[in-house]
Amino acid sequence: MSDPVVDHLLARHDAIVTDLMTLLRMPSVSADPAFARGMDDARRFLLDRLTAIGMENVRLLDGGGQPAVYGDWLHAPGRPTLLVYGHYDVQPPDPLDAWTTPPFEPAIRDGKLFARGASDVKGSTMIAIEAVAALLAVEGCCPVNVKFFLEGEEETGSPSLRAIIGRYRDLLRADGVLSADGGRASRELPTVNTGARGANGLEFTLRTASGDLHSGRYGGAVRNALHEMAALIATLHDRDGRVAVAGFDSDAVPVTDRQRADVAAFPFDEAAFVEEVGAAPHGDPAYSMRERITLRPCLDINGMWGGYLGAGSKTIIPAEAHAKVSVRVVAGQDPRRVVDAVAAHLRRHCPAGVELTFGRIGDGSPASTLAPEHPLVRAAEAVLEAETGRRPIHVRLGASVPITAIFKETMGIDTLMFGFNLPDEPVHAPNEFFRMESIAMGLRAWPAILRRLGEFAPADFRPVT
Amino acid sequence: MSDPVVDHLLARHDAIVTDLMTLLRMPSVSADPAFARGMDDARRFLLDRLTAIGMENVRLLDGGGQPAVYGDWLHAPGRPTLLVYGHYDVQPPDPLDAWTTPPFEPAIRDGKLFARGASDVKGSTMIAIEAVAALLAVEGCCPVNVKFFLEGEEETGSPSLRAIIGRYRDLLRADGVLSADGGRASRELPTVNTGARGANGLEFTLRTASGDLHSGRYGGAVRNALHEMAALIATLHDRDGRVAVAGFDSDAVPVTDRQRADVAAFPFDEAAFVEEVGAAPHGDPAYSMRERITLRPCLDINGMWGGYLGAGSKTIIPAEAHAKVSVRVVAGQDPRRVVDAVAAHLRRHCPAGVELTFGRIGDGSPASTLAPEHPLVRAAEAVLEAETGRRPIHVRLGASVPITAIFKETMGIDTLMFGFNLPDEPVHAPNEFFRMESIAMGLRAWPAILRRLGEFAPADFRPVT
Repeated sequence: MSDPVVDHLLARHDAIVTDLMTLLRMPSVSADPAFARGMDDARRFLLDRLTAIGMENVRLLDGGGQPAVYGDWLHAPGRPTLLVYGHYDVQPPDPLDAWTTPPFEPAIRDGKLFARGASDVKGSTMIAIEAVAALLAVEGCCPVNVKFFLEGEEETGSPSLRAIIGRYRDLLRADGVLSADGGRASRELPTVNTGARGANGLEFTLRTASGDLHSGRYGGAVRNALHEMAALIATLHDRDGRVAVAGFDSDAVPVTDRQRADVAAFPFDEAAFVEEVGAAPHGDPAYSMRERITLRPCLDINGMWGGYLGAGSKTIIPAEAHAKVSVRVVAGQDPRRVVDAVAAHLRRHCPAGVELTFGRIGDGSPASTLAPEHPLVRAAEAVLEAETGRRPIHVRLGASVPITAIFKETMGIDTLMFGFNLPDEPVHAPNEFFRMESIAMGLRAWPAILRRLGEFAPADFRPVT
Repeated sequence: MSDPVVDHLLARHDAIVTDLMTLLRMPSVSADPAFARGMDDARRFLLDRLTAIGMENVRLLDGGGQPAVYGDWLHAPGRPTLLVYGHYDVQPPDPLDAWTTPPFEPAIRDGKLFARGASDVKGSTMIAIEAVAALLAVEGCCPVNVKFFLEGEEETGSPSLRAIIGRYRDLLRADGVLSADGGRASRELPTVNTGARGANGLEFTLRTASGDLHSGRYGGAVRNALHEMAALIATLHDRDGRVAVAGFDSDAVPVTDRQRADVAAFPFDEAAFVEEVGAAPHGDPAYSMRERITLRPCLDINGMWGGYLGAGSKTIIPAEAHAKVSVRVVAGQDPRRVVDAVAAHLRRHCPAGVELTFGRIGDGSPASTLAPEHPLVRAAEAVLEAETGRRPIHVRLGASVPITAIFKETMGIDTLMFGFNLPDEPVHAPNEFFRMESIAMGLRAWPAILRRLGEFAPADFRPVT
């Protein structure tokens, strides 16, 4: 049964890939001000494309940080209004020398499109835009009202998303969020994401002297900031990899039998999962690996440094050491409280003679949960079952999608992740890629889910109370 | 009693400082290949100066690394031959933003000459050259035979010094070494250095996965290279700061009562020593602080890094972590064995699933000891007593002077450190400076010690057996 919208999209497949590669060449790293130009270029690209496909009110929404790109089509009266979410910022590309081809020079090899941001999430963002474009081009209308909201700070924890929503609350009002960020948990099996861990982080510095000291002159007499950093970080986990911070998981909702059953239903080869990335399994033995990464909080040091990092040797006693810490939190946890518990632990374990200071600590984002009977879940199940012939299973995400929590908190609406990237695409690491096959799959699925959602009434999106 | 040589030197004081500042402007960092140009410039400067003052056989001595600058004056038959040692390489200047004025733009403030290498050791090297220059200019001859040997790899542990000595053994033959590197232990009190700790180092890497991992996807499932690095480094010392490596000090000669008495004779304010640099005292409580830094071995992490070090956050599980380690060793210790003990400790404490690899491990340099009746010691005592009116006391250096050990081992000759820098000049750290008053003091003392040494016969320099 031919679908003219999908036919139109598949005929434009190569042109869409070419456009995507143009966007991928723009180094839109939000974490580092050195990439301001790449951020500008990506915004301009998206403003132009939204205008070209017939969006109205195309503009930047400024909340004091990186502005979001907005555009809407609101000519389906009585139908639900969907905020279609994507983001144009990407993770920093380092370490650069670990990339086979440069991060901002997209390259297709073995059916994979390699580039920073290909999988997270410029690829799926383009799919969403092109699906709406095709519906408008072929049918002249869209089955739902659409508001594109393409964020520029997802990779830095959406620091000004609340400010943007506060300032443009009326413009952004919607019945639900359809997100291009995150989605497939398996290449073989259709899955619907019904939740995600939350996240928060902190950065701290230790100081043991007013400056670096000569190890010949002071070696054996004073504290070394790197020894202190090592000793302090070593207290954060026990030997089995359990987080050893007092109160770290005290507000976490205990894992239920139903959750354990859901996890068990998802085929997951623990050994293969870690072997594939050259790692060894490690973590709390009271939980299976998949339970640990989807249902339990965790703590990781993301960066640690101090002293001389250059070529050769330098016999100093470093006076300063730094660490970046991130936590993932689960249902029930206040991400600010969790990070405060970590900070309190660090203070408690920091010896006299060592100065401990923290960078700004943010509120982070809590975990999120989508009810099984929600129209977003039901629409996704129907589309994925039609696409694959198999009944989708419910999964939760180990990664954090702060926007899901923020849209819920600020606008009371739920978010469905409907991106087409896969878990084995190294999204925050070198050689990130997006599978070419996922592009075609996304181009078939997005018009379908917009149509399914158009069958619901706006009222169906409201939570049952 | 006027001395025409000293008068000549003091009349040239400002010109000598100007020349020294020219040399300090040359960024001769031997540890980092990026500074090759600065190394070249410093060599050319010294070759020109040695030629200008009347040295013969002026040339570079190549041992496969950074060549040494050489020049001799051998027209004092029957008199001792002194190898006059200095070095033209300097420590890396980072962290650059901690310098009040840039490291390679010398600036005089409050009677101090600030620049990387001012104290360690271009200042004292220039004093030695100018003292010989003045003796030749004023008296037409020198009281001893002089061979300048100005090294280019002191700050990287003199990796090719043995090769240079092996290749130029006849050219370098001498009765003793008079070194411009190291000397004064106190500004108030005359001291003669009779020994120094040795040193060695190693660098290692931990790997926990084939690449950095997304902490949302793998957090709680795998090892984190930074957690492993912290845990491993935390095993190297106990809570009191004692080195906890098995066998670390097993070959160290025990501290004798005589050594404890020598240390006690040197006025040393432990609290002031560490307070001055904003540090807290820390280390083996069985020894006084000055015993710890001159008579006991120690171990320091000089650099440690891994993961994301840039601006903002990056939620990765780092796959790789690095550390640079240095040790200081005392009499009786084989510096290679000590580092091997550290490597064995790291291997023993490294858990399964973590790959541990070492960089090249060198032989290091052992501690050195100069006999009290040696002509170099007696000459220094006489000169310093005449200069200060006080009897010099014997001290040992906590820092390492690899060349002292290497000259002893390869040529059987002893080295006296006769530099004029002071312990409070931050030589391996930002804002290194050399006191202006030390320049005048050095310009008076160097002609005097060369004359004193000229009163000995070459045979007096041979060790009593």
